[in-house]
Amino acid sequence: AIDPVRLWDSILDTAKIGGTPKGGIKRLTLTELDADVRRWFIAACEAAGCEVKIDDMGNIFARRPGKDNSLPPIAIGSHLDTQPTGGKFDGIIGVLSGLELLRTLQDAGYETTHPIEVIDWTNEEGSRFAPAMLSSGVFAGKFTKDWAYAREDRDGVRFGDALRDIGFIGEEPCGDHPLAAHFELHIEQGPILEAEDKVIGVVTGVQGMRWYEVTVTGVDSHAGSTPMYLRQDALVATARMIEVVHQIALEHGPNAVGTVGLIEARPNSRNVIPGETFFTVDFRDPDDTVLAVMEQKLTERLATVAASSGVAADLTCIWNSPSVHFDADCVGAVRAAAVQAGFAHRNIISGAGHDSAYVAAVAPTTMIFVPCAGGISHNEIESAEPGHVAAGATVLLQAVLAMDAK
Amino acid sequence: AIDPVRLWDSILDTAKIGGTPKGGIKRLTLTELDADVRRWFIAACEAAGCEVKIDDMGNIFARRPGKDNSLPPIAIGSHLDTQPTGGKFDGIIGVLSGLELLRTLQDAGYETTHPIEVIDWTNEEGSRFAPAMLSSGVFAGKFTKDWAYAREDRDGVRFGDALRDIGFIGEEPCGDHPLAAHFELHIEQGPILEAEDKVIGVVTGVQGMRWYEVTVTGVDSHAGSTPMYLRQDALVATARMIEVVHQIALEHGPNAVGTVGLIEARPNSRNVIPGETFFTVDFRDPDDTVLAVMEQKLTERLATVAASSGVAADLTCIWNSPSVHFDADCVGAVRAAAVQAGFAHRNIISGAGHDSAYVAAVAPTTMIFVPCAGGISHNEIESAEPGHVAAGATVLLQAVLAMDAK
Ligand SMILES: NC(=O)NCCC(=O)O
Ligand SMILES: NC(=O)NCCC(=O)O
Repeated sequence: AIDPVRLWDSILDTAKIGGTPKGGIKRLTLTELDADVRRWFIAACEAAGCEVKIDDMGNIFARRPGKDNSLPPIAIGSHLDTQPTGGKFDGIIGVLSGLELLRTLQDAGYETTHPIEVIDWTNEEGSRFAPAMLSSGVFAGKFTKDWAYAREDRDGVRFGDALRDIGFIGEEPCGDHPLAAHFELHIEQGPILEAEDKVIGVVTGVQGMRWYEVTVTGVDSHAGSTPMYLRQDALVATARMIEVVHQIALEHGPNAVGTVGLIEARPNSRNVIPGETFFTVDFRDPDDTVLAVMEQKLTERLATVAASSGVAADLTCIWNSPSVHFDADCVGAVRAAAVQAGFAHRNIISGAGHDSAYVAAVAPTTMIFVPCAGGISHNEIESAEPGHVAAGATVLLQAVLAMDAK
Repeated sequence: AIDPVRLWDSILDTAKIGGTPKGGIKRLTLTELDADVRRWFIAACEAAGCEVKIDDMGNIFARRPGKDNSLPPIAIGSHLDTQPTGGKFDGIIGVLSGLELLRTLQDAGYETTHPIEVIDWTNEEGSRFAPAMLSSGVFAGKFTKDWAYAREDRDGVRFGDALRDIGFIGEEPCGDHPLAAHFELHIEQGPILEAEDKVIGVVTGVQGMRWYEVTVTGVDSHAGSTPMYLRQDALVATARMIEVVHQIALEHGPNAVGTVGLIEARPNSRNVIPGETFFTVDFRDPDDTVLAVMEQKLTERLATVAASSGVAADLTCIWNSPSVHFDADCVGAVRAAAVQAGFAHRNIISGAGHDSAYVAAVAPTTMIFVPCAGGISHNEIESAEPGHVAAGATVLLQAVLAMDAK
C-alpha cells in the first residue's frame, strides 16, 4: 500500500519550487524553476532505484526494471509545469503519485513483470507555449519536433531555445519509446465529483478542444481629439467579440464552454485609441460536430462585428484536439480498483486536456480523477484533500498492478 | 522671419532619438531616450545664447535675456516626450519652434524687452505615468511635487526615482518661476483644420477631461472544466464595460468622447478564465457639467454590469482636468498674427490636453494649432506639412513679439 504521508510531503516539497504568497505555484514550462523541479524529480527517482532517460522534447522517463525487460513499460505520466497563477495539484499529483508508487514497490521489494516508468511530460499547460500537451503530442506523432521547437512565447522566445537553455534536450528521439499502457492521476478541475460526493472519477475520455488566435486591426489615434464617428477602435470591436465567444458557448450549453483567456492591446496607453489587439479563444465540447458549428459561428460573427465596428479581424485556428475515448481495458482496471477499495466513484469525461489524451493514440491509456475544492483549478487557491489524493494513488497502484498481471 | 528649413531639420534631427521603423517615435518620459533628447535640446539652446535652468520636476527652462531682465519671461513651452507609438510632431514642434524663435532672434540680433524662455515640460503625455501634464500641473499648483514623485508606471517604478535616474532633478522648486505669458504651438491632433482647409487654429480653450481606473475582480478558473454557469469571468464583464464607456460617449455626441486605452488581464493565459482585469477610461467634453453626467452614468452602469456578470468592480477617478478658457489678450495676439500673415484660420477648442491648460492658471496663456494629416495623432504615421509648421512658427514669433511690445 502507498504511504499517504510521504506522498503528501512530496507534494508540499515540490510546491516550494516556484511557490507563491497565495499558496499556489508559478512554475512556467522551461524556466529555471521548471529545471529545478525536474532535477528534484530525477534525484528522487534515482534514489528509488530508477534509471532516468530524457528525450529531445525534454520529456523525462524514470524506469524501474521489471522481470521481463524486453516488454514495453507500463507508464504513469503527467506534468510538473504550472500556470502563471497555478495550484499545487494540477499535473503534479500525477507525477508524484507515480513516484510514490515506485517507492512503494521498492519498499515492498515487489517485482513487476513489465518495467514501470514515471513520466514528466514537457509543457502540458500550454500557457507559455501554445498549444497545450505539446510534448506528449510530439510523442504521439500529432506534431513534429521541428514545429514544436518553433513555437514562440509572447516574448518571442522559441520553445527549442528555451529547452536548450535549461539543459533538458535529451538524446532519445521523442516518440521512439513504446509503452504497454499509460495511466494518469489528476484532480478533476471541475465541480462534478465534489457535488456528487464521489472520491474517484473513472475517466472515459477527454472532450474536444480548439484554440484560436485573433488579431484585430483598427487605427491608433488620439483619445481626446478623435471624434467618435471617426474611430476605428480595435478594443471596442474586441469587446464585442469577447461577448460573441461567450454567447456561442451559452448557445451550446450545458456542455460547451468558450473562453477568452489572453488579451493584449496596442499601444496600451490611456490616451490612445487602441489600433490593434491580440486575443485567444478556447472552445470545448465533448462532441466534435458541436465544435465545428461553434467554429462556423465564430468565423461568421467575428466578421460581422469587424465590419460593423470598422476594423479588420484575422482569425486563425492554431490547435484542434478532437475528443478522445480511453482504452476499455485500462478504464476497466481503474473501475475495478475503485470498486475493490470501496471508493465512491462515477464515470466522467475530462473537461481539461491532458497528456493522456495524446498518449491514448499510441498506447492503451486512461486517467483517474479525484475531487478538488469548489472545482477550482488554474488558480493559486486550488486545493485537494490528502485523503482523496491517497485514494487516487491507491487506485492507480492497483490498476497498474492489474494491467501488469494481464 | 523664422527659417522653415532649419526648423524642419531640427524636427527630423530629434526624430532620430527613439525613431521607430514606421517613422514615428517611441520616447517615453524619463527614459534614457528622453534624457538624450533633453541633452540635445540643452546644447542647442546654449548654442543659441541661452542660459538653461532645470526645476525639481525636470522641467527645462532655456532663457534668452531681454532688455529688462527684472521682468518675468515670455515663455514658449511644450514637450519632447512621446507615446509608445507616437509621432514626430506632437509636443515636439512646440519646443522646436521655440528653439527656432530663439535662433531667429539671435541671428537678427533682436533684443526683446522681456527675457524669452523656451520650456520642455516633463511627462506631458501621461502614458508612462498618469496623469498627463503632470509637471506643468505641479508648476501651476494643481498637484504637489510629493504626489507627483509617487506616481508609478505599470512596472511599479516611481516618477521621482525615474527622474533621479536620468539625472534631471534640478534645483529650482517647481512653480517658483513667474511667467509673463505662455504660448504653445501644436498640431491639432484632430480633423477640423484639415477638413476646413485652415492653416492656423486660434485655440480659445481646452475641453475638460477625466481619467478613471477600473479593477474588475472575478475568479480565475480552468477554461476547459469550469461550466459556463459557474464562471465569474472578469474579462467578459470588462468587455461589457468597454461597450458601456463607448455608449455613454455616443449618448453625449457629437462632442463627448470616451476611450478605454489600456487593458490588462490576469493571469492572461489562454486556458484560464481571467480572474482580474485592470483598465482605464478617458472621458472628455468641452462642458464640465456633461462630464459630471457621464461620470454618474459610468458609476451606475459599471455597477449594474458587475452585478449581472458576477464580478466586483472598483472605479476610481484618478484625474479631473476641468475645461480651460485661454487668455483673451494672448488669443487676440495669435489671431492678429494669423490675420497679418494672411493665413486661413478659425477659432478652435482643443480636444487634447496640453501643458498650456495648466499653465493658464498661473500666466496669460494660449496655443496655436496647425493641421495634421487625417487628424491622426498618437500614431507613428502622424504627419504635418512643413509649410503649416512654418506658418505656425511665424504666428508664434509675431504673437510673442506683440506681447513683448505691450
Ligand atoms: N489539465 C490541464 O489543466 N491542462 C491544461 C490544458 C488545458 O486543458 O487547457
Ligand atoms: N497633446 C497631447 O497629446 N497630450 C496628451 C494628453 C492628452 O490629451 O491625453
